[in-house]
Amino acid sequence: MVENSNLNDALKRFNEAQEKSIALQYASSILFWDASTGAPKSGADARSKAIGTVSGFAYQILVNDQMKKDLDDLMEHLDELSETQRVLISNTKKEFDKLTKIPMDEFQKYNALTSKSSMVWEDAKEQSDFEMFEPYLTQVIEYLLKFAEYRGYEGHPYNLYIDDFEEGMTVDQLNVFFDELRARIVPLLRRISESGKRIDTAFLTKLYPKEKQEKLSKMLLPMLGFDLERGWFKESVHPFTMAVDIDDVRLTTRYHENDFKSALLSTAHEGGHAIYEQNISKDLRGTFLATGTSNGIHESQSRIFENNFVLSEAFLGYLFPILNNEFEEQLDELTFRDFYEGMNKVEPSLIRIEADELTYSLHIMLRYEIELGLIDGSIKVADLPKVWNEKMESYLGITPENDGKGVLQDVHWSEGLFGYFPTYALGSAYAAQLAHYIRKEVDVDSCLKEGNFKPLTEWLNKNVHQYGSLKKPTELIELITGERLNSKYYCDYLEEKYSKIYNLK
Amino acid sequence: MVENSNLNDALKRFNEAQEKSIALQYASSILFWDASTGAPKSGADARSKAIGTVSGFAYQILVNDQMKKDLDDLMEHLDELSETQRVLISNTKKEFDKLTKIPMDEFQKYNALTSKSSMVWEDAKEQSDFEMFEPYLTQVIEYLLKFAEYRGYEGHPYNLYIDDFEEGMTVDQLNVFFDELRARIVPLLRRISESGKRIDTAFLTKLYPKEKQEKLSKMLLPMLGFDLERGWFKESVHPFTMAVDIDDVRLTTRYHENDFKSALLSTAHEGGHAIYEQNISKDLRGTFLATGTSNGIHESQSRIFENNFVLSEAFLGYLFPILNNEFEEQLDELTFRDFYEGMNKVEPSLIRIEADELTYSLHIMLRYEIELGLIDGSIKVADLPKVWNEKMESYLGITPENDGKGVLQDVHWSEGLFGYFPTYALGSAYAAQLAHYIRKEVDVDSCLKEGNFKPLTEWLNKNVHQYGSLKKPTELIELITGERLNSKYYCDYLEEKYSKIYNLK
Repeated sequence: MVENSNLNDALKRFNEAQEKSIALQYASSILFWDASTGAPKSGADARSKAIGTVSGFAYQILVNDQMKKDLDDLMEHLDELSETQRVLISNTKKEFDKLTKIPMDEFQKYNALTSKSSMVWEDAKEQSDFEMFEPYLTQVIEYLLKFAEYRGYEGHPYNLYIDDFEEGMTVDQLNVFFDELRARIVPLLRRISESGKRIDTAFLTKLYPKEKQEKLSKMLLPMLGFDLERGWFKESVHPFTMAVDIDDVRLTTRYHENDFKSALLSTAHEGGHAIYEQNISKDLRGTFLATGTSNGIHESQSRIFENNFVLSEAFLGYLFPILNNEFEEQLDELTFRDFYEGMNKVEPSLIRIEADELTYSLHIMLRYEIELGLIDGSIKVADLPKVWNEKMESYLGITPENDGKGVLQDVHWSEGLFGYFPTYALGSAYAAQLAHYIRKEVDVDSCLKEGNFKPLTEWLNKNVHQYGSLKKPTELIELITGERLNSKYYCDYLEEKYSKIYNLK
Repeated sequence: MVENSNLNDALKRFNEAQEKSIALQYASSILFWDASTGAPKSGADARSKAIGTVSGFAYQILVNDQMKKDLDDLMEHLDELSETQRVLISNTKKEFDKLTKIPMDEFQKYNALTSKSSMVWEDAKEQSDFEMFEPYLTQVIEYLLKFAEYRGYEGHPYNLYIDDFEEGMTVDQLNVFFDELRARIVPLLRRISESGKRIDTAFLTKLYPKEKQEKLSKMLLPMLGFDLERGWFKESVHPFTMAVDIDDVRLTTRYHENDFKSALLSTAHEGGHAIYEQNISKDLRGTFLATGTSNGIHESQSRIFENNFVLSEAFLGYLFPILNNEFEEQLDELTFRDFYEGMNKVEPSLIRIEADELTYSLHIMLRYEIELGLIDGSIKVADLPKVWNEKMESYLGITPENDGKGVLQDVHWSEGLFGYFPTYALGSAYAAQLAHYIRKEVDVDSCLKEGNFKPLTEWLNKNVHQYGSLKKPTELIELITGERLNSKYYCDYLEEKYSKIYNLK
């Protein structure tokens, strides 16, 4: 037990460490931003030394004996702290344990392995050679299993890795979730394929000059609710969002001149992430809680803007005349129906990141099943290509011509990122659930028909964004919708949207 | 006395500290670059916390008891070290003493003062109100005098502050230098004024679209020898160069659409700085010596490209047809003679940063005399506006209409930057001296007439750039030219160039 004044000292030290840690995180983020938005490749060595040094200091600030003692003392007196402090201390304690329960030398070996492994993966993907990657993936999984023992877990060891990205989510819940998706989306996709309807998307691959696409993105972002004055919008090879402060939220897109959807949708997607970060309560500024609460909730904000809002019939109806004006030649003689259906065409494809809204979750489901099997031993690494191809055939009706376009397509596993994929599907489901509840308070379609996102964004600001990481994802969804994650809304939404587009009964 | 193994340990610790220090310097630089090239203003608070935290760690790495002991030990064994190590250790010891001889609390008070002082200066300049700024400047000078006592100095206390920017330079040498400049440039300017020749510069202020100016800058930089692949060229409010690594050298310019000279010359100027940093020997990489050796030598590299090369009759003769092609309308019916003379017109003006090549040094001379007087007490702060205006009248024949355009025009003094100004004039003089010696080995005019900078840049790479900070400025100039700084070359160059333009006898 500690005295009150000691408690205050511990809090003071914690706050100082938090401030320094956030400052160093700021520096690391800017180094990443710099590297991704134009820094010369030739400076990579100097940059990686700088990133290593800054991370080293960040580690020392959070992981030391004083911090251990302070966190233990504070955890014993959680009831004497404010809500914000309670969440902060518990989260940091959890992070501290995660960083310290694994012996340092093993963690360093693991980091060396994943660094090598992701390089090997790149070549293996290029050469479509799974055998090259196999021993590395095998080792990565061995480490994850060993680390799970060090860290401790309840139920399934994979729970630990899900929890790293989506706190409170478990294998049991995900099994139910994906069972529902499988039961409803797979048949829906079959009905679409069997409908015989052919949608022409030739207009999407005409030439759309980059400058005009950029102009469109810059018109779209403030329309959605992103404040360009409190952020920075640039171009990069892979689109991403990075919040270095509530008042400095950065996002990128990329332009493909022969792919009209690409930049428009990635801008809407990153815009959703960025609007989340810009609207966190300023009361949380300067704390670890001033960021989105989980990968799944973050993804729900990008998906709701990208799919539920921008790709809706209502908003595309508003956008169509504007686009017609800007891209007269490219959209010549196209009816709105053709445009809307072309933008939402469903087509099973091999590559996750190119998938349409409907088939996307099937790509994720497949990865979830494989991750679970790899962790519980029911799937052997050596069998991965076979398992992958069978599942692709079963869910999407297509088989990759090679492993580069199949099991080797994503970088995640080579970096040890297990438990990350499911959050993509959770994001879409959360988005649909939230969209359902927004409709109880806001006339969503009328707003979208007028290009008026304000009531929608404000609803999200109030119900989701302001809390930052103060609420856990499960807690937040229940607080807003009065129920836990419910995949019904997502499946209903997909069925309704695509039944209409494909004239299904 | 220490054992050899202890010496090795000390060196090892020094190298580790150096590596971390350079990594943190890298991070600070990128934060500055980010802020200067587009980061949202609204993120300034978070950024300044990050900069403060990173500097704090950088200070701790270099200033601690172990480092003090190691430096003392190593200083006793300099003769056992390599040349690079000797220079590194001596420089660091000097820096260490500078940082530690001033009591920490006074140094912090001084930092708070200059931070406030530069804010007050901004308002004072805006309102042209010297009295507002006077008490701050008075205090800044009091601190500088007090710090000089703590730090110790030989001869004049101002020697200390000159040495901070131009190691080895002294009041005695600068007095001789500026006496020579005064004796030759003031009469030259008078003869130009009395020549009655009128040069028309109307073409300079026509509309030059930014995109075309940018294209010109991007053509010029690689022509001068800057490797765009190992650097980054962007736009910012104030042009600057920043080397974060030998292979990552960044520079900016700014475009004024109604001022043709501005971007062209600032690109050449920053290009000179940047070419220096790109061509430092890679043997020095990762050490504190992998940067230009002094402000004056750095400035000589920017000036030689800007004035001696780009503004020469030979190179402008090469450039003129290219410009005519690009800016047909703006340069319509202009003869090369009119173009060359317009680009090099001499006109006494109030503002240093807008001054032409000839009058620039007079602006610096005036500031040098005032700094010296303020430090030795022969000029009172309260008398500054009067002294300023008298000197302006005496050297340039014009008097500012107010203090905002006079004594308050530069930020330097408000930040405590005394001893910095002289290096601008030294840079021009070094440039002329180097240009004189280049001619002994290279046919400079023939190269410039063909736009072929390669032999010139290679000469500078070999004689100046490669050494980084391995040689002191004085040492370097003697090594290259066989003599110390000699203002004769600069005065000769100016007389020859302007006599021809103004048809002086």
